[in-house]
Amino acid sequence: MTSSAPSSLLDPLFGTTEVAAFLDDRARLQGMLDFEAALARAEAAVGVIPAAAAEPIAARCRAELFDLAALGEAAALAGNPAIPMVKRLTALVAETDETAARYVHWGATSQDAMDTGLVLQLRACLVLLEADLDRLEVALADLARRHRDTLMVGRTWLQQALPLTFGLKAAGWLDAVLRHHERLRALRPRLLVLQFGGAVGTLASLGGRGLEVTRALAQQLDLAVPDLPWHAHRDRLAELAAWLGLLAGSLGKMARDLALLMQTEVAEAFEPAAPGKGGSSTMPHKRNPVGAAVVLSAAIRAPGLVATLLAAMPQEHERGLGGWHAEWQTLPELALLAAGALRRMVEIVEGLEVDPVAMRAGLETTRGLIMAEAVQMALGAKLGRQQAHALLERATKRAVAEGRDLGEVLRAMPEIVAELSAPELDRLLDPATYTGEAGTFVDRALAARERGA
Amino acid sequence: MTSSAPSSLLDPLFGTTEVAAFLDDRARLQGMLDFEAALARAEAAVGVIPAAAAEPIAARCRAELFDLAALGEAAALAGNPAIPMVKRLTALVAETDETAARYVHWGATSQDAMDTGLVLQLRACLVLLEADLDRLEVALADLARRHRDTLMVGRTWLQQALPLTFGLKAAGWLDAVLRHHERLRALRPRLLVLQFGGAVGTLASLGGRGLEVTRALAQQLDLAVPDLPWHAHRDRLAELAAWLGLLAGSLGKMARDLALLMQTEVAEAFEPAAPGKGGSSTMPHKRNPVGAAVVLSAAIRAPGLVATLLAAMPQEHERGLGGWHAEWQTLPELALLAAGALRRMVEIVEGLEVDPVAMRAGLETTRGLIMAEAVQMALGAKLGRQQAHALLERATKRAVAEGRDLGEVLRAMPEIVAELSAPELDRLLDPATYTGEAGTFVDRALAARERGA
Amino acid sequence: MTSSAPSSLLDPLFGTTEVAAFLDDRARLQGMLDFEAALARAEAAVGVIPAAAAEPIAARCRAELFDLAALGEAAALAGNPAIPMVKRLTALVAETDETAARYVHWGATSQDAMDTGLVLQLRACLVLLEADLDRLEVALADLARRHRDTLMVGRTWLQQALPLTFGLKAAGWLDAVLRHHERLRALRPRLLVLQFGGAVGTLASLGGRGLEVTRALAQQLDLAVPDLPWHAHRDRLAELAAWLGLLAGSLGKMARDLALLMQTEVAEAFEPAAPGKGGSSTMPHKRNPVGAAVVLSAAIRAPGLVATLLAAMPQEHERGLGGWHAEWQTLPELALLAAGALRRMVEIVEGLEVDPVAMRAGLETTRGLIMAEAVQMALGAKLGRQQAHALLERATKRAVAEGRDLGEVLRAMPEIVAELSAPELDRLLDPATYTGEAGTFVDRALAARERGA
Amino acid sequence: MTSSAPSSLLDPLFGTTEVAAFLDDRARLQGMLDFEAALARAEAAVGVIPAAAAEPIAARCRAELFDLAALGEAAALAGNPAIPMVKRLTALVAETDETAARYVHWGATSQDAMDTGLVLQLRACLVLLEADLDRLEVALADLARRHRDTLMVGRTWLQQALPLTFGLKAAGWLDAVLRHHERLRALRPRLLVLQFGGAVGTLASLGGRGLEVTRALAQQLDLAVPDLPWHAHRDRLAELAAWLGLLAGSLGKMARDLALLMQTEVAEAFEPAAPGKGGSSTMPHKRNPVGAAVVLSAAIRAPGLVATLLAAMPQEHERGLGGWHAEWQTLPELALLAAGALRRMVEIVEGLEVDPVAMRAGLETTRGLIMAEAVQMALGAKLGRQQAHALLERATKRAVAEGRDLGEVLRAMPEIVAELSAPELDRLLDPATYTGEAGTFVDRALAARERGA
Repeated sequence: MTSSAPSSLLDPLFGTTEVAAFLDDRARLQGMLDFEAALARAEAAVGVIPAAAAEPIAARCRAELFDLAALGEAAALAGNPAIPMVKRLTALVAETDETAARYVHWGATSQDAMDTGLVLQLRACLVLLEADLDRLEVALADLARRHRDTLMVGRTWLQQALPLTFGLKAAGWLDAVLRHHERLRALRPRLLVLQFGGAVGTLASLGGRGLEVTRALAQQLDLAVPDLPWHAHRDRLAELAAWLGLLAGSLGKMARDLALLMQTEVAEAFEPAAPGKGGSSTMPHKRNPVGAAVVLSAAIRAPGLVATLLAAMPQEHERGLGGWHAEWQTLPELALLAAGALRRMVEIVEGLEVDPVAMRAGLETTRGLIMAEAVQMALGAKLGRQQAHALLERATKRAVAEGRDLGEVLRAMPEIVAELSAPELDRLLDPATYTGEAGTFVDRALAARERGA
Repeated sequence: MTSSAPSSLLDPLFGTTEVAAFLDDRARLQGMLDFEAALARAEAAVGVIPAAAAEPIAARCRAELFDLAALGEAAALAGNPAIPMVKRLTALVAETDETAARYVHWGATSQDAMDTGLVLQLRACLVLLEADLDRLEVALADLARRHRDTLMVGRTWLQQALPLTFGLKAAGWLDAVLRHHERLRALRPRLLVLQFGGAVGTLASLGGRGLEVTRALAQQLDLAVPDLPWHAHRDRLAELAAWLGLLAGSLGKMARDLALLMQTEVAEAFEPAAPGKGGSSTMPHKRNPVGAAVVLSAAIRAPGLVATLLAAMPQEHERGLGGWHAEWQTLPELALLAAGALRRMVEIVEGLEVDPVAMRAGLETTRGLIMAEAVQMALGAKLGRQQAHALLERATKRAVAEGRDLGEVLRAMPEIVAELSAPELDRLLDPATYTGEAGTFVDRALAARERGA
Repeated sequence: MTSSAPSSLLDPLFGTTEVAAFLDDRARLQGMLDFEAALARAEAAVGVIPAAAAEPIAARCRAELFDLAALGEAAALAGNPAIPMVKRLTALVAETDETAARYVHWGATSQDAMDTGLVLQLRACLVLLEADLDRLEVALADLARRHRDTLMVGRTWLQQALPLTFGLKAAGWLDAVLRHHERLRALRPRLLVLQFGGAVGTLASLGGRGLEVTRALAQQLDLAVPDLPWHAHRDRLAELAAWLGLLAGSLGKMARDLALLMQTEVAEAFEPAAPGKGGSSTMPHKRNPVGAAVVLSAAIRAPGLVATLLAAMPQEHERGLGGWHAEWQTLPELALLAAGALRRMVEIVEGLEVDPVAMRAGLETTRGLIMAEAVQMALGAKLGRQQAHALLERATKRAVAEGRDLGEVLRAMPEIVAELSAPELDRLLDPATYTGEAGTFVDRALAARERGA
Repeated sequence: MTSSAPSSLLDPLFGTTEVAAFLDDRARLQGMLDFEAALARAEAAVGVIPAAAAEPIAARCRAELFDLAALGEAAALAGNPAIPMVKRLTALVAETDETAARYVHWGATSQDAMDTGLVLQLRACLVLLEADLDRLEVALADLARRHRDTLMVGRTWLQQALPLTFGLKAAGWLDAVLRHHERLRALRPRLLVLQFGGAVGTLASLGGRGLEVTRALAQQLDLAVPDLPWHAHRDRLAELAAWLGLLAGSLGKMARDLALLMQTEVAEAFEPAAPGKGGSSTMPHKRNPVGAAVVLSAAIRAPGLVATLLAAMPQEHERGLGGWHAEWQTLPELALLAAGALRRMVEIVEGLEVDPVAMRAGLETTRGLIMAEAVQMALGAKLGRQQAHALLERATKRAVAEGRDLGEVLRAMPEIVAELSAPELDRLLDPATYTGEAGTFVDRALAARERGA
């Protein structure tokens, strides 16, 4: 009944991906066992335990040899699952090699196995997350490129504001994803490190060979050697949590944009259709933003989970009481949530249906009002910003009050006509002439993508 | 891979209780099916659907007839699990009664089934939670009664301060639990209500019979009839979430107190021992506060989950986008967490090992310094608070600097001797004389418990 | 630089109300001083201190006699502001009455003054909050009544779904506000209680007169007497925090609905206009949902602050370390935020501009598609739900594909014509006939308001 | 009444530093004005506005010329403080130069001024934060060096576990701080970038000169040019928030460790003493961990604030509604909180009183039990881990039950004596021989500090 176990009923909806296989009970157990196998080999290699002990131990470090439920029951008393895992592993090894069994978990502590195991799980997850980040970047870059010049209305405060291009919107999404990717690359070396310190982080039980074993062990697992063990210092994990939260936030922004574009009254872009997708049991015509809803739900849930991992950081002395336990289900849950949201967003963007005609039509909703700034700027260059603003305010109010096009109103205002010729005004009222640097910005984002890729 | 599914490896540790059986995939499905069965019966009863349709439908409303994984796959497209559930239920009914099948889910919307189903699940959970609250109150009352006059040191800011009794500490815990129980009673009628409104909350599809069906349906399910459907108004659920968070917070306070009392340097109370409990793989003498750690972890995790449910409240128009989805796994997870923490705390309190000798000895740690206030108050009545404070500050500093008992120092100070006789001073330095209203407060808490029980 | 101090630049925007005057530095100090004055009077009344000491003390318990900055500097060393407040108060009293000065803060602890002072501050705030809740209820009830039958489109997942009335939407908002009001009434007696326990909650320093003084003090302050002091049990305050968070969540839901209705493409309702309100410096035609944005921002901020207060609950032993301090700025900030959002929502609802014509027009957006359910239900009664669904799905797809009205399509389908006569179909396609219990639900909410008021 | 304004009463306690001066109302206004001044100069430089307009505008960009309260009142209507700031600035400029006044804020949008202003404020804060990080690193390195070999007991789950050195504990703290410093260096280039896009991020109002002005403006402000404007993409700010939260978490861990060490029953280290510091009004002997409490309170508050900034990320289209507003007070509050906690921790560490004698004495609390692992490891090498564990479990139980020293018990057990000689056993029972790699780890952390410094 926890966050690290499958729900047949909801997982597919929440986009749970292959990442799940690296975060369930079995993967958690295998992560610890991978630590134990590597420990035995490393200690045998440097001569801390007999050379002959390594393989008999390593051979038993396979999750399928363990009864998860029995370990769970024992963990309830022991306080963590590593303790019964070690006990059971020792028994398994002893079945064939009593001597080797003496050297199981030699010099290590439960947290060494659990933390390092977790790091191994997360490393596997990050590979998949990066692949999906890549896919998303490719899809967004493609979208930005294809719609570099597709006109649509820009909206601020949910009000139509000025024209922009759909390419610019896509480039903005891409730009954020590229930053997240860069952040991930920066945090990876801080995260993918060995945890090995024994009970209080001194490795005293290894009798002076601690650092030597550390290095051999890290090599076995292809992890970096940290300057010192980090049992009660959880910033490495909390940093990953924060990154997952940041990613979910940006995905949520994209999802909200898309859901707003899918509104019946807007209808400018749509999640890819599929048989049975987003249908309503009673309203056959609806096109529900199912994927966007899922991604938004991840963006709503992630902040609380990040807060949990931050709140769990002040862990007591050499091993925390409660703080450590608070991480066990929260970090996997957060990783799954972000991975699921990312996957669903990949699917949305790869199949996004864009309706340039509707976008173009949207620019007419205000009957020219969104072009007021363009006219104002042109006037402003002649009359000053404030005065131009006042003129346009008058014109737009009149247009609204009388239900007329802004162009019509402006052409009837002597103060305007005195400053702007008819063709000049026509040009100023054409949205296509007022997208500024949109294309350039798209190009810059695409170039950044090229540099990063 | 979600919060509403079992983890063999961690559930037992986190105290997951029978509550779990009401919150997993199967229970979620059965909750929806209970709604559908009751709906068919209610609609048949009032004549909205043929009388003969009710039982053929109700007979198929059994979770074991459904393939959870298949529903899950379909939910990924549909956007929620109720849609494929209705489709599958209809097919099941049609196998034996094509006419009845036409009336499955008549006039309802997905959210009606999901929300009402959830309310039914939560009702079952609350029964169990209340039972554990009762157990905890009994155990705490017993503890408070037995240790009404057990002397120990009171600590503020983790510093020894003044004497109190362990009974007062237990009464304080009890007092908070009683308030939570009272809050639960207050919120229950707001929570245990039907959700039934059709797509946008008008019940238009029932052609004017909506309220009639509503009442019959509520009667079937033994739920209250709300003034109106509450699809996008989630305060009823968020209120429960907040309550669970408040409960977890108070349990966390108890757990923190207990873990501090279990410290090697304090050792005044202990979680019940059990074979293999709290042992360390490398430090055979330790007595780890395993239960307290679990409860604290719940107190660390609950706030973030409560925040999620609050953050999910601003749901759009007649049905939310993302906000609703964010609840589906978060509320069950929070309920499990709180229920697990409550159960573990029941077990701790019921078996708590209290060491009155160690508690009494703790009063001697400061060599009389904790009795300084008693002397100061007595002096203050004669010399005024500030002056008495100054005198005692001097005495305590001297006691600390010279490593002597405070009594010894005081007896050597003429300003003290001038005001307080030797027996008077002896009495003032005896912790047993300085517990004030502790006993009375214990009695008041016990009386409140009697009134509430 | 904290949450409990005024920002000239932002407070007006965030709707900060008279509540602010009860939550700033001065009010915090005055709350503590009110406690000290009442304590002196209560202790004099029961004879614990000389009768003559009361008024000289009480006379100095005025915030304007204190230098906030000097107290702040001293608090940095002392650990809380009550300690230097007591010291300074004592000095002030001593200026005119050395004897009385001896009895300042007699038998109390810093937390007694701070917590009780806070309760007094909150009591004053709740009066104002309740007044605004009343105003909001009146305004919402009025809105629901006036627009009981104003047709508009209901939206789920941001998709147009079915017709409803604006009255029903308003009634839903009202219904939630009524529940919050009810919750507030329920929590008030738990919150408005005295805090008085001395250093560790025993009142030992009062030599057996503790309970007597407690009662006299509570009477002075018109607060209830708790069963026992609650220094490290913070559920009373956290419960209020949760309530503020719940309120903010519901206000956020209203604000989101309104902001969506204000969208340029929807334009069905508007915040009241005011000169200079919601204007853009560059887009003179915009009508920004300024109030809704502020309310939404409160709904975004409140969950994190509630989480903070829940996370602060596990406070150590008889006085917490850090947890207590975490409350000092967070709870006032949360109260201000919720009060500001409430006030802004009152202003919005009282002046809301509703455009029934635009609402009616919105029902035509889908060219009849939103009436598909009505037709489907009528057909379903004859052909069964699934079959009717299939027929309508076909019809709506055709309508979309061919850009025709649903009515036109349906009238051309023989399967439809066979079951439904032309006038029957006309009626089924008229949104006004398909609002179900909307009016009844409005009436029920209004009646609930009458009962509660 | 907000988070970005001073509280005389509480700021000094919460360690509010010079950072505050960069985050208050005035600084916020000046940040926007710095943007406006630079904009005028940049636009004049590239010829978008008359060269003569720049200095008359820039000359008025001084916060002291503005009435904060008046701006605040106007902002309440306008929706943000930049709009009235621009209006007022224009009026100020117009007083002396009507022509220049026309070019105030040319081509920019409110959010350009507010976001860029904020970035400038944050840049100033980061300089101060870095200085304090440096101070903390120096102090921690000094502590680790001086106490490299100071023996003390290591504690896990609040239970005494094994010996370690205080130097190792300090090195662990240092190690975490170094990582935070590294993270700050990594995020800085993502944060310190210009925001400049006009209403919807196209810079359309600059008629094709947008990128040119962007570059000149960035140069004026010494900020980087982003690939595109980032109005509704808030990951740059949320990343800083997450970093502040991570920092607060690690400081909280240090504070919790120190508060636990200051416990009356432990008394191994103390915050620096100061006249009047940490005293209690009624318990003159106490030594309250005032600084640790403050730092812990920051660690409790930060997660909720970080969650707020993450939750605010999904901002709508080209400018968010509520999400943006939620940042305005939250980010400064979080920065102040973290800065204050950092400063208080600097003060604590720089003046930390360490009691090596008490630390050494703490190793005797368990009468040898904490050396059980050492004996067990030595025995384990001969008998295997499990068997050695069993033997030691027996010995330790006997020691506890009979109240004897572990050494005494062991020397009386034939199974032990058969394997370990008396001098061997003496050595194994000496904590000084069992600190493993502690010294090496200290050296590694110090070396890392050297590399980073």
